[in-house]
Amino acid sequence: RALTIGLIPGDGIGKEVIPAGRRVLEALPASLGLKFDFVDLNAGWETFEKTGVALPEETVQTLQSCNGGLFGAVSSPTTAVKGYSSPIVALRKRLALYANVRPVKTVATAKKPIDMVIVRENTEDLYVKEEKTYDTPEGKVAEAIKRISEKASTNIAAMAGEIALRRQKIRASGAPSIHKGPLVTVTHKSNVLSQTDGLFRTASKAALADPRFSSVKVEEQIVDSMVYKLFRQPEAYDVIVAPNLYGDILSDGAAALVGSLGLVPSANVGKTFALGEPCHGSAPDIQGQGISNPIATIRSAALMLEFLDEEEAAAKIYAAVDANLEEGKLVSPDLGGTAKTEEVLQDILRRL
Amino acid sequence: RALTIGLIPGDGIGKEVIPAGRRVLEALPASLGLKFDFVDLNAGWETFEKTGVALPEETVQTLQSCNGGLFGAVSSPTTAVKGYSSPIVALRKRLALYANVRPVKTVATAKKPIDMVIVRENTEDLYVKEEKTYDTPEGKVAEAIKRISEKASTNIAAMAGEIALRRQKIRASGAPSIHKGPLVTVTHKSNVLSQTDGLFRTASKAALADPRFSSVKVEEQIVDSMVYKLFRQPEAYDVIVAPNLYGDILSDGAAALVGSLGLVPSANVGKTFALGEPCHGSAPDIQGQGISNPIATIRSAALMLEFLDEEEAAAKIYAAVDANLEEGKLVSPDLGGTAKTEEVLQDILRRL
Ligand SMILES: CC(C)[C@H](C(=O)O)[C@@H](O)C(=O)O
Ligand SMILES: CC(C)[C@H](C(=O)O)[C@@H](O)C(=O)O
Repeated sequence: RALTIGLIPGDGIGKEVIPAGRRVLEALPASLGLKFDFVDLNAGWETFEKTGVALPEETVQTLQSCNGGLFGAVSSPTTAVKGYSSPIVALRKRLALYANVRPVKTVATAKKPIDMVIVRENTEDLYVKEEKTYDTPEGKVAEAIKRISEKASTNIAAMAGEIALRRQKIRASGAPSIHKGPLVTVTHKSNVLSQTDGLFRTASKAALADPRFSSVKVEEQIVDSMVYKLFRQPEAYDVIVAPNLYGDILSDGAAALVGSLGLVPSANVGKTFALGEPCHGSAPDIQGQGISNPIATIRSAALMLEFLDEEEAAAKIYAAVDANLEEGKLVSPDLGGTAKTEEVLQDILRRL
Repeated sequence: RALTIGLIPGDGIGKEVIPAGRRVLEALPASLGLKFDFVDLNAGWETFEKTGVALPEETVQTLQSCNGGLFGAVSSPTTAVKGYSSPIVALRKRLALYANVRPVKTVATAKKPIDMVIVRENTEDLYVKEEKTYDTPEGKVAEAIKRISEKASTNIAAMAGEIALRRQKIRASGAPSIHKGPLVTVTHKSNVLSQTDGLFRTASKAALADPRFSSVKVEEQIVDSMVYKLFRQPEAYDVIVAPNLYGDILSDGAAALVGSLGLVPSANVGKTFALGEPCHGSAPDIQGQGISNPIATIRSAALMLEFLDEEEAAAKIYAAVDANLEEGKLVSPDLGGTAKTEEVLQDILRRL
């Protein structure tokens, strides 16, 4: 099978980790029968500075003819700059990548193992970015719309249910697990936002009440309590589904639990396309030193493959990364090690 | 000085902890010259079930003639109930309690000491609860308004600056501290919400640029990154200021770091009134067993006194609670102990 993959390194360490992701894909064993074509694409702050556009139309259009992509990270200006707006937020909407899937796990031998996936709605909520500002006698007032639809909530909850079932299948097929059965935790703040988050809650629960999810246990948590529980008993959670903004916050929180954002992958998933994206940012402070952790991107490449139905190839990559981390010898500075990006990459490549 | 204090136990363990708060106030040494009059007031789910109103008008009006108050916790229905809406959210607005102040600290001798205050804007953001729902061919859509004003942002940032200065003064007067100087961290998501959170950011920074805060260091953190940092290096933070919803989420996260929500107090603060409120909920699961932790409420009573300019009385209460926790003998089940509410209370009373 031939797969065309768009590569958008973006800014900062995006330029160091995306090439690592590419090399892992290229190094997959021939026996898997995968052939990759890579297309280099632009987006981000540097692109904006050069061209006045953060997300060139060509990038969007080329991606539309790709099977998948890898997005690095982009730098944002610290103050609002006219005409600039986040290319990843725009891409998610333009390509209808309705789910942001963020698995957060420790190695299986960790003292306190964690193994959860945060499934974040990726197209609406406050991310519709419909804002306005007006003057009043008491000063400026700004308003933003938080929009929640039954349709998007239903779709994301169904995705969470599918992922819970898939994880259970993998668990059942051997690997020892901290989870007994599939569990989806629906997160919201419907005690304050009875209509918007109330709709997310009822639509999610209705979607998960479908007979195909009959083996999935469904619970709910108010978002503030969810953050509390995430830190008090993270081992209890399997799949967490949340509206866009809560998902953004929860996934950074979960990343903190496994030691570094440099380990946490994500995939922006649409009906027929998946865009892998490390959860970390462009980290200008460490850019150019060759010490960025490539694992979040390498795992994002695997996650992308999973959603392109190449589960065997994905499993190979996960296993190589896990073996690197289990051994714990060649690890990057964010994890307390001294290995360079290239050394971590080489160690993972030889384990493929 | 005579102080009239409204007591609103609410539901669940609110009824067990508010009396404990009252008894601590009554037991303050006579040398402080404080005389308390207590008024019992109703609000919450039980009140709603009995009267059809969650926050009786009488409660609001009586509080308006009080100096301060203590609010326990209320239970919310799990599905939207017509006519019911959260009494604490309503009270904050009705009494113009514009700041929600949440100190989170470990005992000074903790292995990893933490000592921060979260200063949460308390009247606007998504808590304006202006929502609507409409039908579309693809199903229901709901929208909520997130409103941020220059005025409220300026006021809350100034409050954060004042608190940072006050904490520095107390530190300078002796107690050893993990902080070198006053620091305020402004939290927002202006990389996505450039107008609303952008306004919070610029108004906060402008307020903190006032010469009276010249000794205060001001930093900023995007909210997702703030949650990450909160868990990776909590010792670095002194005062964190945030819009309403982020403040809600961050304070639960911070509470997780000190072992139990049962330790974390808050005060809802207006120009001339302060309402102490434990951060925990009504905890129906442990209600009636006499094992709820009264410390969050006792500390909330102290915090209320601080904002009524009774700092000496407040310091006495804090010291008694700290001594109880330092000794660690009479601690409630949420902290791994076996002491009953009454035993913890007695231990604190004898240390006053
Ligand atoms: C950079 C930012 C717009 C983005 C988001 O908020 O979605 C990031 O935090 C993420 O989680 O991918
Ligand atoms: C009960 C709820 C409405 C409230 C809030 O969201 O403010 C609570 O979580 C709090 O933090 O005081």
